[in-house]
Amino acid sequence: MERIKPRTLSGFMELLPPQQAQMREIMRVLRETYSLYGFCPIDTPVIEAAEVLLAKGGGETEKQVYRFTKGDADLALRFDLTVPLAKYVALHYGQLVFPFRRYQIGKVYRGERAQRGRFREFYQADIDVIGDGVLDVANEAEMPAVICAVFRRLGIERFVIRMNNRKVLNGLFEYLGVGGAAGQVMTAIDKLDKLGRDKVAAILTDDVGLTPALAAELLDILASDDPMATLDGLSGKCPALDEGVAELKTVTGLLPGLGVPDDKWTIDLTIARGLDYYTGTVYETTLLDHPEVGSVCSGGRYDSLAEYYTDKKLPGVGVSIGVTRLFYILQEQGLLSEELNTAPCDALVIPMDDGVLGHAVRCATVLREAGVRTQIYTEKKKLKAKFTYADRLRVPFAVVIGETEAAENTVSLKNLATGEQIAVPADEAAKIIREAVSRPVRPVTGI
Amino acid sequence: MERIKPRTLSGFMELLPPQQAQMREIMRVLRETYSLYGFCPIDTPVIEAAEVLLAKGGGETEKQVYRFTKGDADLALRFDLTVPLAKYVALHYGQLVFPFRRYQIGKVYRGERAQRGRFREFYQADIDVIGDGVLDVANEAEMPAVICAVFRRLGIERFVIRMNNRKVLNGLFEYLGVGGAAGQVMTAIDKLDKLGRDKVAAILTDDVGLTPALAAELLDILASDDPMATLDGLSGKCPALDEGVAELKTVTGLLPGLGVPDDKWTIDLTIARGLDYYTGTVYETTLLDHPEVGSVCSGGRYDSLAEYYTDKKLPGVGVSIGVTRLFYILQEQGLLSEELNTAPCDALVIPMDDGVLGHAVRCATVLREAGVRTQIYTEKKKLKAKFTYADRLRVPFAVVIGETEAAENTVSLKNLATGEQIAVPADEAAKIIREAVSRPVRPVTGI
Repeated sequence: MERIKPRTLSGFMELLPPQQAQMREIMRVLRETYSLYGFCPIDTPVIEAAEVLLAKGGGETEKQVYRFTKGDADLALRFDLTVPLAKYVALHYGQLVFPFRRYQIGKVYRGERAQRGRFREFYQADIDVIGDGVLDVANEAEMPAVICAVFRRLGIERFVIRMNNRKVLNGLFEYLGVGGAAGQVMTAIDKLDKLGRDKVAAILTDDVGLTPALAAELLDILASDDPMATLDGLSGKCPALDEGVAELKTVTGLLPGLGVPDDKWTIDLTIARGLDYYTGTVYETTLLDHPEVGSVCSGGRYDSLAEYYTDKKLPGVGVSIGVTRLFYILQEQGLLSEELNTAPCDALVIPMDDGVLGHAVRCATVLREAGVRTQIYTEKKKLKAKFTYADRLRVPFAVVIGETEAAENTVSLKNLATGEQIAVPADEAAKIIREAVSRPVRPVTGI
Repeated sequence: MERIKPRTLSGFMELLPPQQAQMREIMRVLRETYSLYGFCPIDTPVIEAAEVLLAKGGGETEKQVYRFTKGDADLALRFDLTVPLAKYVALHYGQLVFPFRRYQIGKVYRGERAQRGRFREFYQADIDVIGDGVLDVANEAEMPAVICAVFRRLGIERFVIRMNNRKVLNGLFEYLGVGGAAGQVMTAIDKLDKLGRDKVAAILTDDVGLTPALAAELLDILASDDPMATLDGLSGKCPALDEGVAELKTVTGLLPGLGVPDDKWTIDLTIARGLDYYTGTVYETTLLDHPEVGSVCSGGRYDSLAEYYTDKKLPGVGVSIGVTRLFYILQEQGLLSEELNTAPCDALVIPMDDGVLGHAVRCATVLREAGVRTQIYTEKKKLKAKFTYADRLRVPFAVVIGETEAAENTVSLKNLATGEQIAVPADEAAKIIREAVSRPVRPVTGI
């Protein structure tokens, strides 16, 4: 037979079982935490009509989209979870209850140029709250609370959520008289992190046309050590600015009550988020020890979720975690916990020979009914090979069944980490194993 | 702005939040049960190189595949989870530990003609055990145990797992001297359920060329009321048949110990499974009250998982549940439980006005830290509208915060099903809610 060389496409993450177990734990934490904050899961198709998915059209994104025909249908793979949400809300508007709080964790597709750490298929994990016509600013305070809970539950402590408010930025531009070039100014400011103050000042003067004094004043305000005090100093000078500052105060004022410690968030007036889309609070999340990877969770407040599909006004606020990229970073940096039990089972039942297989399966059933993840090793191998199998999979316990155990209706329970072995009935073994493997473990440590 | 009509493609399931909550529970049961039996999760790309995915080539499947190019890459969407497993095992062979037990739950794509209850994007939930060179027949006994556990944990009791063994069928054909037409005979037998005995007898005589007597003898054996006794009566007449019968006895002999009740499985010699692929035990699972929907979980033993990719012999056994189709059937038949808590949260914290928002968010944080799924209702609406929101989402508890509660550091906990209301501290409310919502519920009842 002619054989095809098996391969996985470049830019597509495919993990070995131990790493997949880590990823699975991350997914579990995401689902559980999003649920805890009252978000309901939805699931939308990976394939949509191209016309629907690309309603907004244009831009870099469209070039990256996987688009194709099947029969006479013009189809495309989703490239984020926001456009499918907009479609979902517009389509099912009459059957949803607003504010509508949903989370979605799913794969999205972008045919980017393949490079290390960039993926063409990757998981996003999004939460959004969508209002019908209006949405209170208090919702903008909940996003940092969810981000904080997710990262801490993942065992990540060394992070900070940087927040700004687009009304503050727009107000500042208006106050400084650069409102006409707001778009260009924002794009330049967004590059402060990458290019530094001098180069951005040069862009603001040379490309945008600000006077050097104006560019300096703008950058002085944005890079202020105490942004809230600086903003307070501008109070009353511009209604739009005042409105933004009031929102920022409402949002940050709620954070302690929402359980967000003071060292986990900061106001950073340089955060603009490149998109026209956002209208209120915006968020970026940085790993303190790895600023070079950029934001690992971003989002913000927007006023028109679905204007391409409906004339209903649907304001919302949301954030998105690029899970595949986050996992890649954690793995690259050696930050995935060694402590997580990545074995496919907690107990490997090892019958000494086929004569005791009946007792072995009965014991396995007792263990499973008690909630112990159990595999029965049924291959005809030497005993040593059976234990090697358990070791290679890092299974915590072997449950050995020989003639004695079958006759006495017990099992020999061996802790494979300590070597300790005791003879106990199967239900007793189940209790011991459950207790040993149920200690909380964190998938990520060190940051 | 010109608007695009939002729509979801025909043949793509997109659920509203309450139904999605049901689906989520089904997925949780699948993951948990597969884990309990010692299967580890893997996740492979939805997109593969067309050359790799279609290595086997030909047939109906290939016509249904979503295939397209991006740049100069010839790509295709996976149409099942078996071919990706074969690729995965062949590609990562050196890093896997055998027997390799994996589960995978994921979306697959088939561009079938759209019709009611048929999906172009659907979830499959597969388990397989793959051996390196050899795989003991005992593994074939575990599949019914897993199927049985999954269905019972889903609350489905009225099902039966029908089993056969391909060696038994092949042995029978050899014994009856129809081995040369085995493929055609099997295809005909596979239709017994649909066409009935007479029409299949006609196919066997007219199309396959068996004598009427031979066709009758074959059908008598296959449709025997006591297939094991019938097979025992043929003992010693054909070594291939004897081998198959011995396997069938080993497998069925282990079932009681594995916790599979006698009424949940049966031997059905008419089950052939249309594919050439299977070589030992084969499985189909029927809903007793809905035989018309066919098998809801099928699979079997095979000897060559990945022969298109590798010269390694990789025998295995596995079964697959078509989750989207199963969900569709349960929903159509009204079998999804009304009892499942499909609300996005267990507690809706309702501040009477903005003056008590601070106390409200602190109480919400206490509830969340105690594991209660909590939403804070922050919209500026009348109190009645806030309760209507809770009712529409079927939230079990309202946690009302007014000036009194803020002053006394309590909450008014209202059970929205009974109307009962008490004033308690937030941590006490958390305990009451946790206890009320933690009672086990089944997503599916009535069958």
